[in-house]
Amino acid sequence: MRIAGPLSRGVALVGAGMSPFGVFRQKTNRDLFAEAYLDMGRSIDRGFDPAEIETLYVGNFSSDRFEGQGHLAPILADAVGLVPLPATRVEDACASGGAAIRQAVMAIASGMHDVVLVGGVEQMTRLTTLQVTDVLSTAGDMLYEMGSGFTFPGIFAAMATAYMHRYGMKPEHLFQVALKSHANGALNPKAQFNLSLRDWMAARAAAARQKDLPAPTWNDELDFLRDETANPTIAWPLRLFDCAPITDGAACLLLVTAGRAREFTDDPIYIIGSGQASDHALAGHADLAGLRAARLAAQSAYQMAGVAASDIRLAEVHDCFTIAEIIATEDLGFFPPGSGYRMVEDGVTNRDGPRPVNTSGGLKAKGHPVGASGIAQVVEIWEQMRGEAGERQVRGDLPLALTHNVGGTGGTCVVHIYERR
Amino acid sequence: MRIAGPLSRGVALVGAGMSPFGVFRQKTNRDLFAEAYLDMGRSIDRGFDPAEIETLYVGNFSSDRFEGQGHLAPILADAVGLVPLPATRVEDACASGGAAIRQAVMAIASGMHDVVLVGGVEQMTRLTTLQVTDVLSTAGDMLYEMGSGFTFPGIFAAMATAYMHRYGMKPEHLFQVALKSHANGALNPKAQFNLSLRDWMAARAAAARQKDLPAPTWNDELDFLRDETANPTIAWPLRLFDCAPITDGAACLLLVTAGRAREFTDDPIYIIGSGQASDHALAGHADLAGLRAARLAAQSAYQMAGVAASDIRLAEVHDCFTIAEIIATEDLGFFPPGSGYRMVEDGVTNRDGPRPVNTSGGLKAKGHPVGASGIAQVVEIWEQMRGEAGERQVRGDLPLALTHNVGGTGGTCVVHIYERR
Repeated sequence: MRIAGPLSRGVALVGAGMSPFGVFRQKTNRDLFAEAYLDMGRSIDRGFDPAEIETLYVGNFSSDRFEGQGHLAPILADAVGLVPLPATRVEDACASGGAAIRQAVMAIASGMHDVVLVGGVEQMTRLTTLQVTDVLSTAGDMLYEMGSGFTFPGIFAAMATAYMHRYGMKPEHLFQVALKSHANGALNPKAQFNLSLRDWMAARAAAARQKDLPAPTWNDELDFLRDETANPTIAWPLRLFDCAPITDGAACLLLVTAGRAREFTDDPIYIIGSGQASDHALAGHADLAGLRAARLAAQSAYQMAGVAASDIRLAEVHDCFTIAEIIATEDLGFFPPGSGYRMVEDGVTNRDGPRPVNTSGGLKAKGHPVGASGIAQVVEIWEQMRGEAGERQVRGDLPLALTHNVGGTGGTCVVHIYERR
Repeated sequence: MRIAGPLSRGVALVGAGMSPFGVFRQKTNRDLFAEAYLDMGRSIDRGFDPAEIETLYVGNFSSDRFEGQGHLAPILADAVGLVPLPATRVEDACASGGAAIRQAVMAIASGMHDVVLVGGVEQMTRLTTLQVTDVLSTAGDMLYEMGSGFTFPGIFAAMATAYMHRYGMKPEHLFQVALKSHANGALNPKAQFNLSLRDWMAARAAAARQKDLPAPTWNDELDFLRDETANPTIAWPLRLFDCAPITDGAACLLLVTAGRAREFTDDPIYIIGSGQASDHALAGHADLAGLRAARLAAQSAYQMAGVAASDIRLAEVHDCFTIAEIIATEDLGFFPPGSGYRMVEDGVTNRDGPRPVNTSGGLKAKGHPVGASGIAQVVEIWEQMRGEAGERQVRGDLPLALTHNVGGTGGTCVVHIYERR
């Protein structure tokens, strides 16, 4: 596979924003998108004139099925006053956001556009959970995966068992990822779960008291996660708190040609690497304990950026399930294969650890509106790199960061690398 | 709206192919796509090594709903042996093909990729006609168009009546477009309707004889089209033969950086202009007798290419309905507003006329597998410009040609301009 050539023009991120993530059944995709667009606008240091925008890319997985609206890009352009600009939807399942960013990067590097809006959105909760599971399953291969009865929790459970078998990880190790994600999410006001697990436990205990049920006797968060009633098994070894929720939300970025970045801000973030790869359906994967598309996408992105995995100071990775985060940190080359779960245990990926991962709370706690997830990852990177992440702020300089966005059962992976100069 | 800047690198078309268009219920999107890919491969003069391809773009409107398969791009990459290349679906309803070409152009101009496969596909006929109408309606605005009871024949009928009211066109003028399209389609072996209307009339007459029904007394094709039984009204003034059919099919192109075109062929076609625009839902259109997105997309493409409408020798336009072809030729600046229908009547757009339009048979006769339509237009341009269109071949040199691809109710339009040097 030829690694992508150097960009004809550099690309900078000058604004990033998102809607709150959560359950907003009364809101359409256009409502959510407009919120993210306005939030993005507020993030631009020198303000901006919407008339500067030249084109719109939208990452969205399945508005067709989630809300019966296809052809979403011009609808969203209209909702935020951007008609008659070119408006294009990009779809690669849960990696739609990352793929849309990549198209925006190309649109700028190609010379065709200087100022590009890229957003992601998904309204999911109007359908029942069963219907959502059905729609999400179309991100896998309908002939060779979903046709065999697999849905996503089952697929990632299979990956988790393969990983456990090979490397000796125990199901309980996954609790550590959930602990970390919820600790970060509790500090993220936009997160779907911005309660700490302690808050959650207190709420459960209060509910039990109210119903005159025996008070739970959890000593700590780990005790809570071990409790099969509080944290039931979904697809062994994955339990409820191992799974990202169903979420409504949107996120937006403003990308510009590097030469014009200072018109918008004195502190732009440069996108210096972009990698994407595809893969076979699961049955064609030589290895279930990793995603080849992620490894290849990361290699491409590192090579384009001229950096190594060890240079990356901060990452938002695609943790649709806790096991996915562990595997991601290995696929990205942060840790050797089989050691990712120990790094979580040792706090290496904590917010105050040497290699923070998913400081936003991740898909797991922040929420996972599929088309928006890959864009919202960049909102966190934007805030963290510029020192604007509030209580979640990672200490020290963050010169290089990375996002990792996976579609389906690893059929797509997109990796981007960000530099603050 | 800022017109797109000049491309950082030139882009050439070095191969083009398509599956037969028609009703193929036994075939999935991947089957159709593989046929088009193989056909494209055969069109490359010097042959090619699939290992040269660096990325895949897929135009597809709604495999999610038509066959229950989302995340189509890596599935198709797998079907033709292109895993682990980046594979990305681009969706802008019936303009998905055109939008995918635009992304492929950008991918090359950006410097990231030298050799790009761009395809379009739609498997539609597994659903009932009513279900297909429902899926297609999601290309309009679910709140302000389809929510009002509109489906596509009704929308284009409204445009036709607005046009008739303003310009004095009669419903019968539309017959002339159908006559021309079917005459061209009859010469296209890949067309869904590759029967001439005469063949059709003969078949109907034979069927009547077989059933001992009175023999039809049509004098000629016009008589046939005037017959409300043979050509019933769908949404006045549009009749059956004014509407593009429901079609299964796929098409593929190979685009490369201009500097490498001669590695593949001595006779490449250069893509020198690309324009795209969006528009409001129909209620926000100031004018129903034209599509503003088409006018703006054409302006952008002409400006990028440095050519005028009058320079274009050949065009494939988006004739989902006969009225759409007439309006397209005006929006593109080929003819003044209100004169397009007279040009058809006068034979100006005939295959042997001074300004041939839809020599392939158009969506109308060739068929309209929505995500593939914008790509298949380019297959016709490729064959015509290189003098390989067989019985359909337009006489004389064709130095400049154009494709025009519309999504939804004009919410998207994409125009590309092609040069043979």
